[in-house]
Amino acid sequence: MPEFSPGLEGVVAAETAVSEVDGANGRLIYRGGYLIEDLAPVASFEETAYLLWHGTLPDKAELDALRHQMAAARRLNNGARGAMSSLDPQTDPMDTLRTVVSAQGATKALTNPTLEEAIALTSVFPTIVAAAYRRAKGMEPIQPRDDLGHAANLLWLMEGKDASPDRVHWLDTYLVLLADHGLNASTFTARVIASTGSDLTSCVVGAIGALKGPAHGGAMFAARNMLDKIGSAENAERWLQDAHARHARFAGFGHRVYRTYDPRAKILKEMAQTAAPDLYKTAAHTEEVALKILHEAHPERPNATNVDFWASVVLTGVGIPKELFTCLFATSRVAGWAAHVLESLADLRIIRPASTWIGPQPGSKPVPIASR
Amino acid sequence: MPEFSPGLEGVVAAETAVSEVDGANGRLIYRGGYLIEDLAPVASFEETAYLLWHGTLPDKAELDALRHQMAAARRLNNGARGAMSSLDPQTDPMDTLRTVVSAQGATKALTNPTLEEAIALTSVFPTIVAAAYRRAKGMEPIQPRDDLGHAANLLWLMEGKDASPDRVHWLDTYLVLLADHGLNASTFTARVIASTGSDLTSCVVGAIGALKGPAHGGAMFAARNMLDKIGSAENAERWLQDAHARHARFAGFGHRVYRTYDPRAKILKEMAQTAAPDLYKTAAHTEEVALKILHEAHPERPNATNVDFWASVVLTGVGIPKELFTCLFATSRVAGWAAHVLESLADLRIIRPASTWIGPQPGSKPVPIASR
Repeated sequence: MPEFSPGLEGVVAAETAVSEVDGANGRLIYRGGYLIEDLAPVASFEETAYLLWHGTLPDKAELDALRHQMAAARRLNNGARGAMSSLDPQTDPMDTLRTVVSAQGATKALTNPTLEEAIALTSVFPTIVAAAYRRAKGMEPIQPRDDLGHAANLLWLMEGKDASPDRVHWLDTYLVLLADHGLNASTFTARVIASTGSDLTSCVVGAIGALKGPAHGGAMFAARNMLDKIGSAENAERWLQDAHARHARFAGFGHRVYRTYDPRAKILKEMAQTAAPDLYKTAAHTEEVALKILHEAHPERPNATNVDFWASVVLTGVGIPKELFTCLFATSRVAGWAAHVLESLADLRIIRPASTWIGPQPGSKPVPIASR
Repeated sequence: MPEFSPGLEGVVAAETAVSEVDGANGRLIYRGGYLIEDLAPVASFEETAYLLWHGTLPDKAELDALRHQMAAARRLNNGARGAMSSLDPQTDPMDTLRTVVSAQGATKALTNPTLEEAIALTSVFPTIVAAAYRRAKGMEPIQPRDDLGHAANLLWLMEGKDASPDRVHWLDTYLVLLADHGLNASTFTARVIASTGSDLTSCVVGAIGALKGPAHGGAMFAARNMLDKIGSAENAERWLQDAHARHARFAGFGHRVYRTYDPRAKILKEMAQTAAPDLYKTAAHTEEVALKILHEAHPERPNATNVDFWASVVLTGVGIPKELFTCLFATSRVAGWAAHVLESLADLRIIRPASTWIGPQPGSKPVPIASR
């Protein structure tokens, strides 16, 4: 029997050219060989999505064409509108996203994943997330704008007014940074679903469900919650020492793959200084103390800050309420999910691992059926 | 770098006591150590689900309690009803199932998977599947009956009249046989989603998406389609030889794990003789010829009939239209999905495999951004 690696740690489950997490060196490489720190300062989310889907950055005409296609795909269809308006406005926005994306992508017959579907699904996420936000606040959802980029349109859909260029830029950078990250659990979910020959919507809906978990996309919310509880830089030492004494985990620290500082966290930390100066102070001191405690307790571990920690600060600066953080993550990562599904089509083989039986062997005892 | 096993073939991804596919010996063991051929003739779907969830078969009082709980959970809530009625009636019923289950299970805050949720989700599948069926036919959905078992209630919901005990028995046996099957792609999907700490509905919705694929749950539909094209026993030899010459795959043959005849196919084949005597003749001759052709072409392969082939004949005898076959599969397998998710909670570790980078290494070339 082959050895069992819990969590499939270290087991190679795909060959990919979409992105590479070089954990040992703290590098994240996007398709085409771009380091995230080279790409993030200059690329928009649309350019990044194009890169992940095509393998090259778009020229001016290609980018214009994509922007046009995305703007045209921002509206909900009848099924999605009906599903949205039937859900309780206080529904977890990730459940709303899961349901409404499923309705939006429902078709009469099985479709094979295409680039057009990838563009359409990616484009409609802000519409759904913002409508969930507005309904929860007792406000009517508003219509998307065709003249805005992806990030600006999302803020417009939430607030019904133009956001400042700074806020749009911070959000856009966040969306670029989170768009793909190797074979994380939600992307892997999408690839497993795709491996049966299923459609792209099914892959994306499954990935939303995986991202929802607190060990994955839910971690940003947890990091911000921790910062809220700490409240101020002065309070950090006492709060963290108390939590450590209770054996509580610090939200926003540690990662399966990175053995050093997450390059995305580095970019977001720098951005957080201007995006959310007050929360930055609390967060920076929290980070310092948390890393000190972790290094003392577990000197053998890498104990680095992860992307969720600083992303939660930047999104706060953008003005995103923490209840929407996981939805924002999904709004970015859907580009990567779709890229992985499209890549996997070239050599589709059903992902069907083995399991080890730990139950009893069949005996000769009779089957005790009560109803007979 | 560890070796890459495409499709994770032979890679152990979980330890489980829910079910075991002993492919070498053609055995399927359900929880507690029951061979499927011992269980299927005597157990109902409710008893099987109880077994998969609890590890033991229920006594009379436990079974009554489960039946009561299931009957009480058959109705759609407002969100699910709204989602259902907003979808185009001609929507692929698997897309309807994916969307409406997502709506039915939507909550205001993250819930950890529980047995109660497993029961509730399993109970509501027939309501959704039958409503999708009736809407496609231009008929109003009807209300579930509390006094019927799971299989009988499903046929009632589809047809609005009591089905014969034979048809109920065949359907019930089908539901028992398909309820779990080791770490198949949809069950694995559910476990990956659960591994992030997500909720049971997200796991089940993702699994529905995986089951939809033609390489997984969609195979029953393909098998029945092939039988429809063959049309009669006399036509089988010519049709299959033609298909083989075109290098077309025969639907309903071959399996990743079984190296011999699938024990479920054996039970279904026997049942098909009385459930669908006409289609049985075509299918039996088709099987004989197909296996002959496959053995001649690939003597090194096991080339056995799989469960989809004979399940498609039995479900035809039950009176299920082939467009609903994958939904019927889901109606059975949801019990297994939930059992695996609940089992996995005992030792939750995020499933996050590695990937091999096949893209270019980062260079020093500038990032060509068109918009700048």
